[in-house]
Amino acid sequence: MQMTQHHRDTLRALLTWRRDVRHFRSEPVSDAELDMLRAAMDSAPSVGNARPWRVLRVVDPDLRARVRDDFVRENARAAEGYSKARRADYLALKLAGLDEAPEHLAVFTETAPSEGAGLGRQTMPQTLEQSTAMAIHALWLMARACNLGVGMVSIIDPDRIARLFDAPPSWRFTAYLCVGRAAFDDDTPLLHRASWQENTTTRWEQR
Amino acid sequence: MQMTQHHRDTLRALLTWRRDVRHFRSEPVSDAELDMLRAAMDSAPSVGNARPWRVLRVVDPDLRARVRDDFVRENARAAEGYSKARRADYLALKLAGLDEAPEHLAVFTETAPSEGAGLGRQTMPQTLEQSTAMAIHALWLMARACNLGVGMVSIIDPDRIARLFDAPPSWRFTAYLCVGRAAFDDDTPLLHRASWQENTTTRWEQR
Repeated sequence: MQMTQHHRDTLRALLTWRRDVRHFRSEPVSDAELDMLRAAMDSAPSVGNARPWRVLRVVDPDLRARVRDDFVRENARAAEGYSKARRADYLALKLAGLDEAPEHLAVFTETAPSEGAGLGRQTMPQTLEQSTAMAIHALWLMARACNLGVGMVSIIDPDRIARLFDAPPSWRFTAYLCVGRAAFDDDTPLLHRASWQENTTTRWEQR
Repeated sequence: MQMTQHHRDTLRALLTWRRDVRHFRSEPVSDAELDMLRAAMDSAPSVGNARPWRVLRVVDPDLRARVRDDFVRENARAAEGYSKARRADYLALKLAGLDEAPEHLAVFTETAPSEGAGLGRQTMPQTLEQSTAMAIHALWLMARACNLGVGMVSIIDPDRIARLFDAPPSWRFTAYLCVGRAAFDDDTPLLHRASWQENTTTRWEQR
């Protein structure tokens, strides 16, 4: 399968226009779109071909409300850690789209999968969580290709979330994803636009 | 920026034909291609827009040889953990392309970046390593779009590798990547073809 300039340009556009979305419109995500997101995850690299990601589609309003409560509490706690001036900037940022996003996905990593028979993860067990992160990125890009936005919420207590969903002891909470149509498109991160953290250049050093 | 069926089909093809490559041809990777890989990484999501990935392009033959030695040692140790029959299967797998791949990248995560001012990672510091994993996945897909293969080597001792490269204390070793032209294309993982671990179906449960 020979790829062309066309493939490179298309991937470049998807990478450029993918954002961490916190402003959603309310239109639902279709089952066909959810199927494409799941298929994209299942095409991600995984150590030992173990596919350790576990996904809960959260539809119960009470569960959603409790996740939101956790975000509000942890976000307030995080704000306390900043100086007064910086705190005002922090609180002015909208850091989650939990109220508006039509789809919520709680993503976990199976830390002791039988799949893969341990291959590739004896010395670096973190490869399992790396696999789940890559699967989330694959979902994120396919969502963008479907004109859907994804917001990754990490300002929550991972142990409390695992208990809330009654996750098996071997599951580690990885991320909470909000999915829906973005209220607007942008080719630049919100934190750069808001002057919180501008885009930095990463160097590759040679050894 | 409205995406179309064409974007979805192109991404689907890239996801489908991306492999963990262990069989490389020797042709060099061009500087222009390396620039595209770096740009892809820099378009990955990162917590607080911190871009915590740090990449060392490894060209020194002695450093490469010492990484290879580490792989050989850790691979032998991993093999010991299997039953006799399974061990023969394990040893028959080619798990790294360290000898043939023209480019080697040692990827680390800065676990205490000033960028981002801590935003989004108070409760889940693992978001930094998730960011680096996603950046590797972005590089991986762009490599495939450039008709380059990537192999991610995790059967090495992360602390020994960090010492080998004299990494700062705040850097955590994430992955060692082999990059070059793949000896063959495939739409199916090698571990599935080799009957080590077949592709499994992941379910999404509802809560």
